[in-house]
Amino acid sequence: MLPHPHHLPSGASNPVILLTGFDPFGGDAVNPSWLLAQALQGQAIGGHTVVSAQLPTVFGQALERLAALHRQLRPALTVCLGQAGGRAALSIERIGINVDDARIPDNRGAQPIDQAIVPDGPAAYFASLPIKAMLRAVLRAGVPCEVSQTAGTFVCNHVLYGLMHLLATEGAAGMRGGFVHVPWLPGQGTPSLPLRDAVRGLHQALWAAVLARQDIALGAGATH
Amino acid sequence: MLPHPHHLPSGASNPVILLTGFDPFGGDAVNPSWLLAQALQGQAIGGHTVVSAQLPTVFGQALERLAALHRQLRPALTVCLGQAGGRAALSIERIGINVDDARIPDNRGAQPIDQAIVPDGPAAYFASLPIKAMLRAVLRAGVPCEVSQTAGTFVCNHVLYGLMHLLATEGAAGMRGGFVHVPWLPGQGTPSLPLRDAVRGLHQALWAAVLARQDIALGAGATH
Amino acid sequence: MLPHPHHLPSGASNPVILLTGFDPFGGDAVNPSWLLAQALQGQAIGGHTVVSAQLPTVFGQALERLAALHRQLRPALTVCLGQAGGRAALSIERIGINVDDARIPDNRGAQPIDQAIVPDGPAAYFASLPIKAMLRAVLRAGVPCEVSQTAGTFVCNHVLYGLMHLLATEGAAGMRGGFVHVPWLPGQGTPSLPLRDAVRGLHQALWAAVLARQDIALGAGATH
Amino acid sequence: MLPHPHHLPSGASNPVILLTGFDPFGGDAVNPSWLLAQALQGQAIGGHTVVSAQLPTVFGQALERLAALHRQLRPALTVCLGQAGGRAALSIERIGINVDDARIPDNRGAQPIDQAIVPDGPAAYFASLPIKAMLRAVLRAGVPCEVSQTAGTFVCNHVLYGLMHLLATEGAAGMRGGFVHVPWLPGQGTPSLPLRDAVRGLHQALWAAVLARQDIALGAGATH
Repeated sequence: MLPHPHHLPSGASNPVILLTGFDPFGGDAVNPSWLLAQALQGQAIGGHTVVSAQLPTVFGQALERLAALHRQLRPALTVCLGQAGGRAALSIERIGINVDDARIPDNRGAQPIDQAIVPDGPAAYFASLPIKAMLRAVLRAGVPCEVSQTAGTFVCNHVLYGLMHLLATEGAAGMRGGFVHVPWLPGQGTPSLPLRDAVRGLHQALWAAVLARQDIALGAGATH
Repeated sequence: MLPHPHHLPSGASNPVILLTGFDPFGGDAVNPSWLLAQALQGQAIGGHTVVSAQLPTVFGQALERLAALHRQLRPALTVCLGQAGGRAALSIERIGINVDDARIPDNRGAQPIDQAIVPDGPAAYFASLPIKAMLRAVLRAGVPCEVSQTAGTFVCNHVLYGLMHLLATEGAAGMRGGFVHVPWLPGQGTPSLPLRDAVRGLHQALWAAVLARQDIALGAGATH
Repeated sequence: MLPHPHHLPSGASNPVILLTGFDPFGGDAVNPSWLLAQALQGQAIGGHTVVSAQLPTVFGQALERLAALHRQLRPALTVCLGQAGGRAALSIERIGINVDDARIPDNRGAQPIDQAIVPDGPAAYFASLPIKAMLRAVLRAGVPCEVSQTAGTFVCNHVLYGLMHLLATEGAAGMRGGFVHVPWLPGQGTPSLPLRDAVRGLHQALWAAVLARQDIALGAGATH
Repeated sequence: MLPHPHHLPSGASNPVILLTGFDPFGGDAVNPSWLLAQALQGQAIGGHTVVSAQLPTVFGQALERLAALHRQLRPALTVCLGQAGGRAALSIERIGINVDDARIPDNRGAQPIDQAIVPDGPAAYFASLPIKAMLRAVLRAGVPCEVSQTAGTFVCNHVLYGLMHLLATEGAAGMRGGFVHVPWLPGQGTPSLPLRDAVRGLHQALWAAVLARQDIALGAGATH
C-alpha cells in the first residue's frame, strides 16, 4: 500500500506527504481524521504524493507506528490529523507539549497522568509548518479554519510532540511536520464540519504547506 | 422581480415559496441569510417556485415589508432566514414569542425593551413547518443542522412571531411558515458554515417542508 | 412538614413562597436545585414564608405533585428551580412552551417526542415574575445572573408551562409564578456556581419578586 | 509599599509570595486580577507574606516591571494573575510558550505577530507550581477551578513565559512560579465568578502551593 521508498543518500527526504489519521475512540463509531486522510491518499500536491496511514489511539504505540512510517518513507512533510469534538473549524496546532495527562483511557485502557512523553526532552516543540499561510489558504477556500494554541494532553498532543522530537533527532534538512485537528462530522455532534469541506480545506492547507518557503505575518493569537 | 401573482379565489395560495433574508446588522459587512436567500431565488422545488426578498433589520418595518409581500404573493410556504453568529449549524426554529427585547439597536437605532409585538396577541406561536422532517433531510445531506427552542428576542423572533400571527389572522388554508437561523460565513467568525453547505442544506429543508404532509417523530429537544 | 393552610375565602392566597427543586437525574448524584430549595426552607422574605418541596424528574408526576402542593398551600408566589448543566449563571426563565421533547429519558424512563403538555392549551405562557427586577437584584449582590429565553423541552419546561397553566386556570388574583435554572455545583462540571452564591442570589431574587409591584425596564434580550 | 528586602546570601530567597495583577485592558473598566491581588496583600500564608503588585498590560514593560520586583524581593513563590473573559473557573496554567501573537493591541498599542519573547529561548516552560495539588485545594473549598493547557499568546502568556525564563536564568534554588487566570466579575459578562469566591479559592491555592513539596497525581488533562 505504501510506495516503494526512493533510494536516497542518508538524511535526504522523499517528495512525500505522510498524512495520518486515528482510529475511532471514546465511544465514537468513526473518526473523521481517518476518513479525511483516506480521502487524500495518492493525491499529487505541488510535486509531492500523499501517503495516508492510520495510527492507533494508544499512547506509545501511536508513536512507534509513526516512527516506523517515517523511517520507511522519509517524507518531506508529515501532517497528523486528529478528531476534536467540540471545535468548529479545521484547527492548525501551533505547539506540542511534553506531557501526557489523559482525561479518558486510550484504546488500550491506559490513562497516564502528568507523565513526560520524552523524559528529559524539551518542554515543547513548535510545529514546523507555515501555520498562518495554511490558515489563509483554507479561509480563502471558504472553509472554517483557526490556529490553536493547544493540542490538549491526550494522544493527539502525544503524537505532535513525538513527531517533532523525531524530526529534531532523526530528521533530514527540510523535513517538516505538524498537526491539524478536525471537528466532528454532521451526525456525530454539534458543532460539525461536512467531510467534503474538511477535504477541500485540508487540500488547500497542504498546498500552502508545500509552497510557502516561510510563513506570513497574520494575527491568529488568543488573549488567553 | 416578483412573479405576477396568479388570480386565485380569495383565501387560496400560490405554489410559491417566499424566502426572506435580512440586510447586514451589528457591524457585519454581509448577512449570510440574504446571500442564502438569493442563491435559491427562482429554484423549482416540488412544484413550487422560490421567490427571494430582503427584509430590513428594523422592528416594525420588517413586518410591514413581509406583510406586503405576503399579500402580493399568497405563498404556500414562507421561510424567513436570519443570521445567528455563534451558532454552528442550520437552526430550525420551533417557536416565536410575543416580546421585543433588543440587546443591540436595530438598523434604525430602535432598541425596545420587553414590548409586545402584537398587544393582546398570544404569548407565542409554533412554526407550522415539519421541523423534524426538515432536520432529518438536512442531516442526511451531511450538513450540520439542529432544532432551536428560541429565536431570541431581536428582529428575527419579531419576524417569526409576526409571520405566524399573519398566517393565523390572514392566511389561507394550507399556508405554512417558519424561520431558519444561519451561522456566520467563514471569515465572519467562528463557528461558521460555508455558503454552499448552507445552500445545499436549505435546499433539502425546503424539499422536506413541501413534501412532508405531517411531521415525523424525531427527538431534538433540549434539557434546558 | 408543610404548614397548616390558612382558612381563606376561596380564591385568596397565603403569604407563602412555594419553592421547588428536583431530584437528581441523568446520572448526577445530586441536584443543586434541591439543595438550593432546602437551604431557603422556612426563611421569612418580605412577610412571606418559604416552603420547600421536591418534585420528581418525571413527566406528568412532577405536575401532579406541584398541583397538589399548590392546592394545599395557595402560595402567593411559586418559584420552581431546576439544574442546567452548562449554564454559568442563575438563569431566570421568561417563558414556558407547550411541548415535551425529551433528549434523555426522565427518571421513570419516559422520553416523549413533540407531545403537547396541555392538549389545546396555548402555545406558551410567560412567567408572571418581575424577571428584570430579579435580575438586577441578583447582579447587585455580585452573583452571576441572566434572563433565559428558553427553559428547554424537558421536565423543567414541562413544570414551568404546567405551573403557569395552573395559575391561569385555578389561580387566585395576585398569585404569581416562574422558574429559575441553576448551574452545576463545583465538582459536577464546568461552568459551576458555588452553592452559597446560588443561595445568596436566589434570596435576593425572591425579595425582588415579592417587593416589585411591576417589572423594571432593563435590557436582557438575545439577538438569536 | 514593598517590604524591605532581607539581606540574604546571593541566590537565597525570601519567605515572600509575589502576587501580581494587571491593569484593565481591551475596554474593560476593571481587571479582576488586580482586585484579587490587592485582596490578599499582606496575608500570611504558611510562613510567607503576600506582596501584591500591578503589572501594565504592555508587552515588554510588564516583564521589566516583574524582573525589577523579583530582583528586589527575591520571593520564594511568584504567582501572576490575569483576566480570562469567557472562562468559568479559576484556571491554573500549565505552560507558557515562547511567542507573542496579539489578537488585540496592548495598552500601548503594540500588536506583535509571531515574535519570540526570548529569541533563541526554549519553545516553552512548564510552571513550577504543584498545579494538581492547587486544583484539589480550590475544588475542596467549593470554588470552580480547572487546569488550563494554554495561557494564550497575549500579555498573560508573555508574563508567564518571561517569569519562568527569569527563574531559569536568575532564580535561586527553591524559587517557584506560575500563572492563574481569573474569570470576569459578575457585571463584566458571562460566565463570571464573584470576587469573594476568587479570593477564597486563590487563598487555598496559595496554601497548597506553599505546602506541597511535590505535586499529586490527579487527572486534569484535555483530549484536545
